[in-house]
Amino acid sequence: MRPTGRLHLGHLHGVLQNWLRLQEAYECFFCAADWHALTTCYESPGGIPADTEEMVLDWLAVGIDPERATVFVQSDVKEHAELHLLLSMITPVSWLERNPTYKEQQQELKERDLATYGFLGYPVLQAADIIIYRAHKVPVGVDQLPHVELTREITRRFNYLYGETFPVPEAMLAEVAKLPGLDGRKMSKSYGNAIFLSDTPDEVRRKIATMITDIERPRKSDPGDPENRCVAFNLHRLYVAPDRRREIVEACKAATLGCVPCKKELAEAVVRALAPIWERRTALGDDREGLHRLLRRGAERARDEARATMEQVRSALWSPSARSG
Amino acid sequence: MRPTGRLHLGHLHGVLQNWLRLQEAYECFFCAADWHALTTCYESPGGIPADTEEMVLDWLAVGIDPERATVFVQSDVKEHAELHLLLSMITPVSWLERNPTYKEQQQELKERDLATYGFLGYPVLQAADIIIYRAHKVPVGVDQLPHVELTREITRRFNYLYGETFPVPEAMLAEVAKLPGLDGRKMSKSYGNAIFLSDTPDEVRRKIATMITDIERPRKSDPGDPENRCVAFNLHRLYVAPDRRREIVEACKAATLGCVPCKKELAEAVVRALAPIWERRTALGDDREGLHRLLRRGAERARDEARATMEQVRSALWSPSARSG
Repeated sequence: MRPTGRLHLGHLHGVLQNWLRLQEAYECFFCAADWHALTTCYESPGGIPADTEEMVLDWLAVGIDPERATVFVQSDVKEHAELHLLLSMITPVSWLERNPTYKEQQQELKERDLATYGFLGYPVLQAADIIIYRAHKVPVGVDQLPHVELTREITRRFNYLYGETFPVPEAMLAEVAKLPGLDGRKMSKSYGNAIFLSDTPDEVRRKIATMITDIERPRKSDPGDPENRCVAFNLHRLYVAPDRRREIVEACKAATLGCVPCKKELAEAVVRALAPIWERRTALGDDREGLHRLLRRGAERARDEARATMEQVRSALWSPSARSG
Repeated sequence: MRPTGRLHLGHLHGVLQNWLRLQEAYECFFCAADWHALTTCYESPGGIPADTEEMVLDWLAVGIDPERATVFVQSDVKEHAELHLLLSMITPVSWLERNPTYKEQQQELKERDLATYGFLGYPVLQAADIIIYRAHKVPVGVDQLPHVELTREITRRFNYLYGETFPVPEAMLAEVAKLPGLDGRKMSKSYGNAIFLSDTPDEVRRKIATMITDIERPRKSDPGDPENRCVAFNLHRLYVAPDRRREIVEACKAATLGCVPCKKELAEAVVRALAPIWERRTALGDDREGLHRLLRRGAERARDEARATMEQVRSALWSPSARSG
């Protein structure tokens, strides 16, 4: 995950809860990809280290377990850069140019100058990040599928040229609907409509109070349709118990429950659910030395794996018996 | 220098004798750029390690002194890959596309598929190779000037974005004429017209015997013009003492000295001059373990410098006080 700074409920329900399931079932590597942040933020990278720490704090607060999974920062494992360089030699420029997000992002972020060599090549770096751990699966969203496909193509080409070295990794799609933000658009830091994992209880209460509900129910005396029209109700689905949720739907449809008390109740449910996350986050955030120690340990574990892979890569690459050698 | 395998007299007089002078006057880093060899040889890299060793043996045989200069193999110093990655983030693709040798080499080597990301970016790797040692000067031939200019641009951009970190290196042109090969074209391994530093005395004698002389002097009884028309005479200038050379010129012009004995005498002069190089090369080549030890020591010295630079680079890059941070 790129360090975008503090995470919000959209990340929690879209990505992190999936990671929590994965760490139970698989050997996981969770990487804070700070070098990737440079592809778009190279002009002002000063905030990246702090963003990285805040993001990792959020991971740990929701329950990512550094004893179980390997949690580390990309730039602490230089082997990613070495493999990136080697993969760059076998990756046709045309594969990168036809990457749909390349032109798209250049368009979207056109106030920044993204026509850099590193931005063009970030799928190569991503491929290195994945295959350096000989990964079999990559948990991604739909928008990342073209990159995983590129990783697969690069991996196959390496194996073809130098002999079977890497498993060809598979995308693992999580079936999670996008969580709307306070204003009904996708929850996103840049839209200013997000509830952050690091918000205080009062911030959460205040934000939920401003949340859009059913815009076709301007007065309490109008009957509502929460399941189809209410933005806030998306949070009810996640934070209010089914029995109580059914009562709320009835009361809204019967126009006996107004939006103000309804959102107050919702806010209290969210605050209750986030309380253990906040507790852990505060404890972790107060012990930066502990966080750094934990990340150093994670980097060591990652490095051990990455080094073992690079031994194999070098012997495949430089061996005179390589396929075309 | 890219590991192209065994070096020849063209390298000796064009590059290595310059390096010998430089190692007296400067702190030098001589790098066998094996990762660079991958940019064009990625389809069959199996021979690169052996080519690298042969090249380094030639360096040492002619007198490059690993006690005085730092002699190492690029891929032994992973920090080059890290800096390459960081520089890739700030290098516009357009700078690389307008690199004159990019299209040129693609044209020249069109039987190979060189439209790779790594081939496009090799000036970025070159820039990393140079500035990671905070180099002030880069000894290059005229054909490499555009690359040094690119290195300077990338360096200035880094310094502009993140604060003064690197000296902007300057090209150091050696004024050496190109040595013609046996057939009068530029001496080159791929033309099959080269006298290698690792040839045996008899190979040198045989090759010089086939060397083109003055094509307008088919018979010994025709007067020659060695200084203007004789290919072999280029070697006389380098290997025959001035007094004797003057006598030869007189005799050739007077049609009293034939090309066969003249080239025999030349061959003996070359053999005499190369004898100490051969002696060192044989001794060094017989002790591969010693060579590996020497390269490991060189890599350690290079790594110490590269690591010190990377500390500065990281603190410039990630510091919140970076220019635009």
